[in-house]
Amino acid sequence: MNYFEKLSHAQRKNNSLLCIALDPDVEKMPSFLKISPDMIFSFNKAIIDATHDLVCAYKPNLGFYIAGGIDALKSLKRTIEYIPDDIPVLLDCKFGDVRHTSEAYAKGVFQQFEADAVTVSPYIGFESLEPFFDYEDKGVYILTLTSNPGYTEFQNLTVSGTKLFLEIAKRICETGRKNLGMVVGATHLDEAEAVRNVAPETPFLIPGIGAQGGNLERSTQIGTTQDGKPPLIVSGRSIIYSSKGKDFAEVARQKAIETKTIINKSRSIVKEN
Amino acid sequence: MNYFEKLSHAQRKNNSLLCIALDPDVEKMPSFLKISPDMIFSFNKAIIDATHDLVCAYKPNLGFYIAGGIDALKSLKRTIEYIPDDIPVLLDCKFGDVRHTSEAYAKGVFQQFEADAVTVSPYIGFESLEPFFDYEDKGVYILTLTSNPGYTEFQNLTVSGTKLFLEIAKRICETGRKNLGMVVGATHLDEAEAVRNVAPETPFLIPGIGAQGGNLERSTQIGTTQDGKPPLIVSGRSIIYSSKGKDFAEVARQKAIETKTIINKSRSIVKEN
Repeated sequence: MNYFEKLSHAQRKNNSLLCIALDPDVEKMPSFLKISPDMIFSFNKAIIDATHDLVCAYKPNLGFYIAGGIDALKSLKRTIEYIPDDIPVLLDCKFGDVRHTSEAYAKGVFQQFEADAVTVSPYIGFESLEPFFDYEDKGVYILTLTSNPGYTEFQNLTVSGTKLFLEIAKRICETGRKNLGMVVGATHLDEAEAVRNVAPETPFLIPGIGAQGGNLERSTQIGTTQDGKPPLIVSGRSIIYSSKGKDFAEVARQKAIETKTIINKSRSIVKEN
Repeated sequence: MNYFEKLSHAQRKNNSLLCIALDPDVEKMPSFLKISPDMIFSFNKAIIDATHDLVCAYKPNLGFYIAGGIDALKSLKRTIEYIPDDIPVLLDCKFGDVRHTSEAYAKGVFQQFEADAVTVSPYIGFESLEPFFDYEDKGVYILTLTSNPGYTEFQNLTVSGTKLFLEIAKRICETGRKNLGMVVGATHLDEAEAVRNVAPETPFLIPGIGAQGGNLERSTQIGTTQDGKPPLIVSGRSIIYSSKGKDFAEVARQKAIETKTIINKSRSIVKEN
């Protein structure tokens, strides 16, 4: 089963498009977890235990593990191993390096950390990203339109009569590869709609709802492909850091149910539980 | 002492612009090292012992350590700790993520892995890279013109009457920050010269000589700023993997001397040893 089949299976099984970002920040975690020998893993494990029947994927971002050094990178590996086999894991790294380095990164992400999918950055050129693409059973989401205010600086520049982010969308389609998706932020919806028009059948990974304030309902609609493949909708901080009390995992579960429900209300094609 | 002062000091002390890329590939290492409990560190240590008086910096690329999982990431940390304090370490990661994630990455790179400088990717926008820039004592090299053939795909597109890579060069200058540099490949020299004209005083990090075939002499000339700050010239595979025999470190030393000498010949401002 390739990544997109695995994702689709999880979306149906849990009736969910919600992808929880597992981005550990020890300052935001309940302080009683500090007694744990592996605080980050203990936190992630509690969140996974409380939400694995509500999500279609988990997305740890490498940055929050690099921030904790070797110990936190070990926690990342333990976390990925702990996630149930039928829930895909997307390692968010936004890598983009020359070809022989991309080979090394892809080996690390897919074979050492055993992620099901990864994010990459296009600036280097697709020629150099092919070693990722060549793992045909894995998913590769290419940064297209990011959710930050600074997307205007380069992504939104006009190139040959179009926007750079639309040019990237067009080139993703032109590869003809079936294991590619796009990162399209929920915070710039008119632009996201333009991406959808250029790439009617490419799956979206949508960050920017929750803490970043994007519109969930319209994002879900735009994020669905012409042939009905729904997006991954990412939420992190607004779910996992809802409480610093003993009940943090239960509160996260309630937040995840709320988020999942709002997403599903905006999908006429998905029947409510 | 900030990063660029430390670099300048090392360049003078060793009379060298050579930055050796410490990119471990166990397939290319001498097989007798396989008996070592930490093969990657043993290899790096031997290369550092043999070349630390010949270089101005070392540049490990994160990809080659991610490829080996947790154990190799530990070897990376040991390697950085082992490098003499007066030789700066540039961790090549090409990160580019939203602001709060950049904060996490910067913390990891500078505080956990204790690198002196880092590479970042501009596609996300400088607004999101500021957490790196804010470490004013550290160096941040922004991908501007990469050394791979695929630089044509996006970097070379025309935006508002200029090339995207020149627009990025211009914006780097406009930040007015003194701790920024540019990654400018040695394989596209006319384009590199155009970058130098747009950014006469920004330090260059130049990959692409050696295995990638760039022209060393012209790169060194173009790489020098108007006010005489020389570039970092990166070479990796063509030095560190010159021999698979017991003499690999000594052969690497000879290759490093050769490379350093050719670079210095092209610098009228540096006196030969």
